[in-house]
Amino acid sequence: MDWFSDRVGAAIEKTGTVLTAGIDPDIDTIPLCFHREAAASARSDEEFFRRVIVQFYLSTLEAIADSIPTVKPNLAFFEQFGIGGLRAYREITDWCRARGLLIIADAKRGDIGSTAAAYAAAFFGPRTAAGRPVDALYADAVTVNPFLGFDTLEPFVSRAVNCGTGIFILVRTSNPGSADLQGIKQGIDGVDVSLKIAEWISQQGKRLRGTSGISGLGAVVGATHPSELRRMRAAMPDALFLIPGYGAQGGSASDISQARTAHGKGILVNSSRGIFGGISPDASSTETREIVVARVAEACAALVDAR
Amino acid sequence: MDWFSDRVGAAIEKTGTVLTAGIDPDIDTIPLCFHREAAASARSDEEFFRRVIVQFYLSTLEAIADSIPTVKPNLAFFEQFGIGGLRAYREITDWCRARGLLIIADAKRGDIGSTAAAYAAAFFGPRTAAGRPVDALYADAVTVNPFLGFDTLEPFVSRAVNCGTGIFILVRTSNPGSADLQGIKQGIDGVDVSLKIAEWISQQGKRLRGTSGISGLGAVVGATHPSELRRMRAAMPDALFLIPGYGAQGGSASDISQARTAHGKGILVNSSRGIFGGISPDASSTETREIVVARVAEACAALVDAR
Repeated sequence: MDWFSDRVGAAIEKTGTVLTAGIDPDIDTIPLCFHREAAASARSDEEFFRRVIVQFYLSTLEAIADSIPTVKPNLAFFEQFGIGGLRAYREITDWCRARGLLIIADAKRGDIGSTAAAYAAAFFGPRTAAGRPVDALYADAVTVNPFLGFDTLEPFVSRAVNCGTGIFILVRTSNPGSADLQGIKQGIDGVDVSLKIAEWISQQGKRLRGTSGISGLGAVVGATHPSELRRMRAAMPDALFLIPGYGAQGGSASDISQARTAHGKGILVNSSRGIFGGISPDASSTETREIVVARVAEACAALVDAR
Repeated sequence: MDWFSDRVGAAIEKTGTVLTAGIDPDIDTIPLCFHREAAASARSDEEFFRRVIVQFYLSTLEAIADSIPTVKPNLAFFEQFGIGGLRAYREITDWCRARGLLIIADAKRGDIGSTAAAYAAAFFGPRTAAGRPVDALYADAVTVNPFLGFDTLEPFVSRAVNCGTGIFILVRTSNPGSADLQGIKQGIDGVDVSLKIAEWISQQGKRLRGTSGISGLGAVVGATHPSELRRMRAAMPDALFLIPGYGAQGGSASDISQARTAHGKGILVNSSRGIFGGISPDASSTETREIVVARVAEACAALVDAR
């Protein structure tokens, strides 16, 4: 099996960075030159949004695709544009796949039994149904919400074992209210919700472990709690960590180093606005596509150097 | 404001039932007559799946639309068919909306700040962006996963307040592992995760409370734990409950009566397979559309009578 964690490891080795480019389309911060291009050719509003998003991301990703191992499109930002947005997701991920970028669908899905299996099928397709191939959404890995219980993670894990894909279970997030439920401790001096999830991931990890020793049954752990990163690494020594919150949400490079394995491996660090969001709305009207692409390339290179 | 909970109350009064029809497309259990019809006209696999799903559900919903207040399409089952599946979601929900059925998108979404806002925009659109209308997904209410913390629920609540839509927060689910995390108790004899969420819903409920006194800041509470239903109703006296697990998952009508408010109101009860799933695959090859539609209508009527 060509394990997800091994493919990630090879891509990190080749590019020399753990930086993941977060793709969170926000039409109002995409520079106006892309709006003008799309407006000239789109025959409907749906097509307009799709073209703005696809052209902005393909143009800028072209400039950074050889410098990074992975991209992390967040489904929410595509779904807000309805069917057109999801077509943009497919066009961008098809392009990334052809360029050899690994795709982590940040979907935070989770549901019971057969429904969880349907979500797994959505992202780890194509599969067949009624004797025909299904042209599903596509990802090399997907983020999963564990709230419904460990039995609900099983359909994702078993499909990932069959497909050689990866899963990142939400363990500790980087938002202000992350401790509301994740921090609830069982009994007195007991384990909290996050640690209980971490222990499950550690126990099940061998099912998606690659030849490198790192497991593609991974964890999402926010970068805004460095002590949490240490605690989580201790609980999940071999799991691949996906760390959001670098840059815009406040995590620093030294914070993040706490999350590496004993061998200095096992992390991916996401930045979305730090790479693609450096466009001031006021100035955007006079910017050309070339200027925008150069600025994204510079922002990405600066983040790669900071790793 | 035309509150969601009031619209649900009026629809329940008109139909005399709290039964919600769960729309979970599984291509392999949709009778073959619908496959044959779709195969005759579809020019692609994507179009084939879309037509099978849309024709099956519009044909059967036509027979039961006047008998039920609400439908609950589960996004997982549409997403597994990629873009074609999401087009089916739109076609079915557009039809339901035109027929006056209220739509609960069972999406179990949840993410931090701006991402949660994007999910809220996806379901509670249309809105505009870059000066143009966005043709988003559509729902009167959406199910939301609270795992990331209470701050992450705020974008859904504030958008629902503006739009008069509803939210059903996952509080206690009906699967075997539901207690893994939802049942973790804080301290000794402390509140568990589910109760902590219930308390938050109760505190915030007035923001979506209708003239009936019922709040559209609702809760998903599984029917497989009748004692849980009582405990949850005590904690959330005015919240609208969405109760899955009726029929196929094991909950009975008397179990569910535990969940009503002091005034005997405030519940919606979902059945998916119990209405649409009564088709034996072996027999399906000889069934006509008329036979299938009649069987769905009978199954729905039997569940309405059992309420």
